[in-house]
Amino acid sequence: MSDITKIWESLALDHGGKIVYLVLDGIGGIQDPHRGVTELQAANKPHLDALAKKSSCGLLDIVGAGVTPGSGPGHLALFGYQPLEYNIGRGIFSALGIDFKLREGDVAARFNFCSVDKGGNITDRRAGRISTDVNEKLCEKLRIGLNLGDVKVFIQTESEHRGFLALRGTGLGGEITDTDPGELHVKPLEPKALNENSKRTAELLTQVIKHAAEVLKEEHPANMILLRGIEKYHPVRGLKERFLLDGLCIAEYPMYKGVSRFLGMDVRSSTGGMQGIVKNLKETFNDGHNFYFLHFKNTDKAGEDGDFEKKIKAIEEVDKYIRGIMELNPDVLVVTGDHSTPSAMGVHSWHPVPVLIHSKNARIDRVDRFDEISCIYGALGQRPAVDLMGLSLAHAGRLKKFGA
Amino acid sequence: MSDITKIWESLALDHGGKIVYLVLDGIGGIQDPHRGVTELQAANKPHLDALAKKSSCGLLDIVGAGVTPGSGPGHLALFGYQPLEYNIGRGIFSALGIDFKLREGDVAARFNFCSVDKGGNITDRRAGRISTDVNEKLCEKLRIGLNLGDVKVFIQTESEHRGFLALRGTGLGGEITDTDPGELHVKPLEPKALNENSKRTAELLTQVIKHAAEVLKEEHPANMILLRGIEKYHPVRGLKERFLLDGLCIAEYPMYKGVSRFLGMDVRSSTGGMQGIVKNLKETFNDGHNFYFLHFKNTDKAGEDGDFEKKIKAIEEVDKYIRGIMELNPDVLVVTGDHSTPSAMGVHSWHPVPVLIHSKNARIDRVDRFDEISCIYGALGQRPAVDLMGLSLAHAGRLKKFGA
Repeated sequence: MSDITKIWESLALDHGGKIVYLVLDGIGGIQDPHRGVTELQAANKPHLDALAKKSSCGLLDIVGAGVTPGSGPGHLALFGYQPLEYNIGRGIFSALGIDFKLREGDVAARFNFCSVDKGGNITDRRAGRISTDVNEKLCEKLRIGLNLGDVKVFIQTESEHRGFLALRGTGLGGEITDTDPGELHVKPLEPKALNENSKRTAELLTQVIKHAAEVLKEEHPANMILLRGIEKYHPVRGLKERFLLDGLCIAEYPMYKGVSRFLGMDVRSSTGGMQGIVKNLKETFNDGHNFYFLHFKNTDKAGEDGDFEKKIKAIEEVDKYIRGIMELNPDVLVVTGDHSTPSAMGVHSWHPVPVLIHSKNARIDRVDRFDEISCIYGALGQRPAVDLMGLSLAHAGRLKKFGA
Repeated sequence: MSDITKIWESLALDHGGKIVYLVLDGIGGIQDPHRGVTELQAANKPHLDALAKKSSCGLLDIVGAGVTPGSGPGHLALFGYQPLEYNIGRGIFSALGIDFKLREGDVAARFNFCSVDKGGNITDRRAGRISTDVNEKLCEKLRIGLNLGDVKVFIQTESEHRGFLALRGTGLGGEITDTDPGELHVKPLEPKALNENSKRTAELLTQVIKHAAEVLKEEHPANMILLRGIEKYHPVRGLKERFLLDGLCIAEYPMYKGVSRFLGMDVRSSTGGMQGIVKNLKETFNDGHNFYFLHFKNTDKAGEDGDFEKKIKAIEEVDKYIRGIMELNPDVLVVTGDHSTPSAMGVHSWHPVPVLIHSKNARIDRVDRFDEISCIYGALGQRPAVDLMGLSLAHAGRLKKFGA
């Protein structure tokens, strides 16, 4: 069957309105068993509700029925990339997230500093969440004396216990399993090549790990590393090439900056939650970009913490700044999420995510609250998240007619 | 584009909750022209409605827009098998339904005993629905003197006028047309090979039919046979291989046992309608299975009979036993059907089928009645029936996250 995202490519115009995506990470929820409502239903959010009332509302199925998305697939879907076709390893986003200049053919991986006991068994997969400062010193140590011949190795701090490494050379392969077993009281796994092309690379990573074990053995608590999300970097056609959009990401966390750079967007770092996001949006709104991706993290964090009240507070924080965005009068304002993170579950989930599209071209439905249940009755219905890019382009007047 | 059912395979966990499917055969209906309501709307079913009120509800499109499913595709879709890709002949399910041990490469077919006049024209396609006893005696007669050389032939009673036959040998083909013309006052059709590989097999079936005509010519009313659903048996990957589910089917009718065996489920025979089903469920609920398929036939039977009141009674019978299932506290309880059989039509139909998913992880919508119209407003929306398996696995905590 035809891929609708390719049709948008063929219809995209290089003029039209400005699009703003406000992505509330993990926004969707389920009912709290005690309160009988979701976080969005419980929150006091007059501005989001007023916005819903004059928008097209609906629900987005992010990857597919029953499939719980990671943050990567969740965002790729919102940006018009079929999430089942672009299953990108997190190592790539981590590298791009700290603005490491990945080149085609590099193999990137995330790593955690961890703690192991004398027998080599893992006692803490995050080494007590060491500070970023300590991480930087340990990375410095790791770099010394690490020689892989004609293959260059890069080791970089991300934050706290997190880092990433990249190998650069010819003929590397990225089909290699994680060494993080995901559990305690077992040894780290060996990196295993899943195809012939990746064998040498797996051996090189084994050398890196041995070197790390040797260099870190006297350290405490971070005396070992665990690799995950190992992948070879293949650039993809970005938002500019595909949809003629000049994108700007405004985000605090590296992961989302990484996804944005992966898609060719510019990136502006933001701090201070919604206040910082809207401040940065105001400062950049007339700088030539026509697609703004605003990423708000606290909704997901609260959900992951299983903290219903904290997620409500995060939603209420967002609500206070909706007016600030509206004052800029974007041609299209989308509010949605990259996946659900119900605080009743404390993890990402497969449940569809509410969405609204506000635009002078939107067909207004009867939905007057922005929540998971009210949006069932919306004009957008329940549909794949990948549709959002086509709908946004259309509402912005950035798609030609199809056929005569 | 990627097949979502393959994604579930790649994410399936071998731990998590227990899933119960209660399949009410032919449950969907349309409004009775006199009463202006559907059977589900008319039935007094307080327990099903109370369950709907605390579940995610929706509608399942079984095969696709406007397509009326047979029982095979209907069930395959509910179990996560794309019904357009797994179009299995009924002969296979009949054989497996009576626990005949089909082997890969066997060609199976269903047959009916029928009545023909002196000119060889069909006067009754079911031979007056002869008793199963008579059927058994006639099958015994058919077996005598039936010699196909190196190809073995098996002839088995199913029930009443229904039987099945299987051919076993090398190089058989199953692309052969039915001999049942589906109408009266015409001669049975010849079995026609649809490809080169099936020619010899069609000739063998012609020999079987000639033999039957000869052996049965003095019988009354069953003096001929009609073949349909001719197919070569190719085993498929079952629920265990695909989704790591240990399934148990609890059903009364062979067809549904056959579908279940086809998918590698264990089978427990049940009699006595819903009472028998729930009794069997209670007896097996802690025996190591984690997927229970409960098949209730009477809703479909009443629909096929065009009997609105009888279908209401069948629904009310189901309602009485919902509490018995709930007492077992399954992690996921699904109530749905394999297709619609509106009693106003008296046949299977293409209309979507109501569905509910009850689980602590379900997002609760505003639907408070389990019927075709109320479920339009449910959290699950209207979606392909094949989605049900992914949603069930997700609600049971049996799927990993997709992507980092």
